[in-house]
Amino acid sequence: MSDERLRVDTRIDARWFVPIERDGVLAEHSLLIDSERIVALLPRAEADERYAAREHIDLAQHHVVMPGLVNAHTHAAMALMRGIADDVGLDAWLRDHIWPLEVAHVSAEFVHDGTSLAAAEMLCGGTTCCSDMYFHADAAARAYLAAGMRAILAAPVLDFAMAGATNADAHLQRGLEVRDRFRGSPLLAFALAPHAPYTVGDESWRKVVTLAHELDLPIETHLQETRAERDDALAASGMTPLARLDRLGATGPALVAVHAVHLGDGDLDILARHGCHVVHCPTSNLKLAAGIAPVASYVARGVNVALGTDGAASNNRLDMFAEMRLAALLAKGSSGDATQLPAQTVLRMATQNGADAYGLGARIGSLTAGKLADVIAVDLSELATQPCYDPVSQLVYAAGREHVTDVWVNGERVVASRSPTRIDVPALALRAQRWHQRLSAGTIQ
Amino acid sequence: MSDERLRVDTRIDARWFVPIERDGVLAEHSLLIDSERIVALLPRAEADERYAAREHIDLAQHHVVMPGLVNAHTHAAMALMRGIADDVGLDAWLRDHIWPLEVAHVSAEFVHDGTSLAAAEMLCGGTTCCSDMYFHADAAARAYLAAGMRAILAAPVLDFAMAGATNADAHLQRGLEVRDRFRGSPLLAFALAPHAPYTVGDESWRKVVTLAHELDLPIETHLQETRAERDDALAASGMTPLARLDRLGATGPALVAVHAVHLGDGDLDILARHGCHVVHCPTSNLKLAAGIAPVASYVARGVNVALGTDGAASNNRLDMFAEMRLAALLAKGSSGDATQLPAQTVLRMATQNGADAYGLGARIGSLTAGKLADVIAVDLSELATQPCYDPVSQLVYAAGREHVTDVWVNGERVVASRSPTRIDVPALALRAQRWHQRLSAGTIQ
Repeated sequence: MSDERLRVDTRIDARWFVPIERDGVLAEHSLLIDSERIVALLPRAEADERYAAREHIDLAQHHVVMPGLVNAHTHAAMALMRGIADDVGLDAWLRDHIWPLEVAHVSAEFVHDGTSLAAAEMLCGGTTCCSDMYFHADAAARAYLAAGMRAILAAPVLDFAMAGATNADAHLQRGLEVRDRFRGSPLLAFALAPHAPYTVGDESWRKVVTLAHELDLPIETHLQETRAERDDALAASGMTPLARLDRLGATGPALVAVHAVHLGDGDLDILARHGCHVVHCPTSNLKLAAGIAPVASYVARGVNVALGTDGAASNNRLDMFAEMRLAALLAKGSSGDATQLPAQTVLRMATQNGADAYGLGARIGSLTAGKLADVIAVDLSELATQPCYDPVSQLVYAAGREHVTDVWVNGERVVASRSPTRIDVPALALRAQRWHQRLSAGTIQ
Repeated sequence: MSDERLRVDTRIDARWFVPIERDGVLAEHSLLIDSERIVALLPRAEADERYAAREHIDLAQHHVVMPGLVNAHTHAAMALMRGIADDVGLDAWLRDHIWPLEVAHVSAEFVHDGTSLAAAEMLCGGTTCCSDMYFHADAAARAYLAAGMRAILAAPVLDFAMAGATNADAHLQRGLEVRDRFRGSPLLAFALAPHAPYTVGDESWRKVVTLAHELDLPIETHLQETRAERDDALAASGMTPLARLDRLGATGPALVAVHAVHLGDGDLDILARHGCHVVHCPTSNLKLAAGIAPVASYVARGVNVALGTDGAASNNRLDMFAEMRLAALLAKGSSGDATQLPAQTVLRMATQNGADAYGLGARIGSLTAGKLADVIAVDLSELATQPCYDPVSQLVYAAGREHVTDVWVNGERVVASRSPTRIDVPALALRAQRWHQRLSAGTIQ
């Protein structure tokens, strides 16, 4: 009998699967993984008949297995600045705290250690891929490869000097070098990240657009995060920042608009017409008092909306379970309609939609045969997640990242029974504490 | 030397203490507990000199120790309905789901098992006391005493039949019987809980007020949760629900107004003038689309604001860390001011303010010598809470209930190294699953 069966690396039996490929839940199924890919998700009896797995992982009692979460916007290395400036407004936060700290401390070593810390936090919490907009992307790349995490390295472009690059051209050059060096890696993808309309001038935007088009890269940018950003641009130029990007040719399916808290009807038309994407960062938008993005209305217009944590300095958790829950809750409370952004929609935002935003939707984002095996297992047996009437609801409203037990990225089990397999946790904690001492010396505390 | 030292039961050394009695953090201190009371919180060297403890607990490396969290509003037994009706509006939620299920299933056995489940979840997550507004309070009392948790049993009063009581008098009678039976217990306190202005008529309100005054009991009620509740009352009577309660003599330091999402200036004046309390339930208010209570403005007016989870059917976590974080975030995002409800304020809301609301402020709510020892320890060593620039910020914005390791209630250690000492977890999970089967049979799923 076993002669006829297909040999694969791994079989996972789970009580429930949430495939995302289609809505709802599958019970009594098995997921087959071979090398880096999902081979099949099918009823257990069929799995018995058709596949022989070298490793059989039994999560059939209590676990729900789903695609890994995609954190569609973060600044990973800023994990080292977690909580360094809380309860202050966005302007003061940037000008009096974050920017001076970055100028003083950000180096390749800082980025490597900070990204390692962030990757460990994200992986253990079920996030298997992030888009990381930060400096010294080569150091970040090394951190992701060491941790076994998937990442989109979004090369920052600014019109001023930062982290050793003196202008937009130099920033772009840096980003392209990193892309050239790491293009062969199956875990890494790339994007261009002009910081924001207000920090990048027309000439630089045009270069970004040309380059993104030539190299088929996404363009990730902070867009209309605050009301002032939109109002100031309107007052100064008669155009919203997004209308300006539209004139510069930046709109299209490559554009990933992060935050998009304050959009007018015209802005929403632009996003919808061009197939642009939005990354909703609800915690960061609340914490920095930017406001509440009415994303249910974007979804209703057909705009693809993904979810992101933003950096740990404005969140302070890199926790996609927290973002899912908050997105679902905020959409209801701010609209007065409790049926908005139901749990299934939010799970899709945190997986497939994030992948789609960066052109990875055919490779990750759902439990689909042929896709890369980015998979997480969540234990719903604890008292805090009992009873369980609907695993989809339970994942969004009751469960948290603390219930994630196992994580696979690209077919490799990088978290096993709550322990990261590739990360030296005590050594990493020590490095975080060393940075704490250095950064504290530069703060007012 | 030891002859001269005072003998006490327990000494806890922690890296940081957040006493709440005053703002900020104490380092290198020790907390001394004898029998059910806090004896002292003082520098370690002084503790060495003055006290000899039978048990010495060393949390000096990584832990912050603070008062236990007070969940100022829940319906504990509804933990058995966690997630049974998500993504629906308040009216449909109550009329089509919750009330029919309650009529069909709520019994003393249901309340005992549901309260046991809720108490386990709350204790393990650092909540040492809750105000529990639910039926069959005698069964709930038994569950709290078995779990070793402190609770305020808030006896529901309704003008219609529920859970075996046929009218307001019968409901009141039930509540008083439970109070008489359990008055001697050091863990239990009592309140009267007229469900809401719209479910309790003037006559019944007058009885409640008289009785509360005679027996010195708090009056907990759902107040102006939705805009419709306020608008309908105004249209029908020319008075807001709170103005009506004021005319009925219900306002005063005994009144605990739960939700209070939609208050006019006149309402806020009434609350402030009479020293009434508000319980803010941010998750529940979002999830049922009631709205966002502008509690920072209440705090600014001098109103005592506490925090609550509401029941698990509308939350779905009985998680005061989640409520703290959400309260701090929402106040900023909804007001446009990132300095509103800073971390220290929110910690106080979740501890001392909750105790004050129910007249327990002299007994619990802070690490103060002479108060009852309701104490929790939170481990900040995990990578997700590193680095730590400010333990107060870290508790609110980065930590979660999953970082609570040890819990004392009334001097007894009821959670030790993340395990409840008095609760049979597998047996409780089994009971929850049995109720799941019974309740599922009655749902559309």
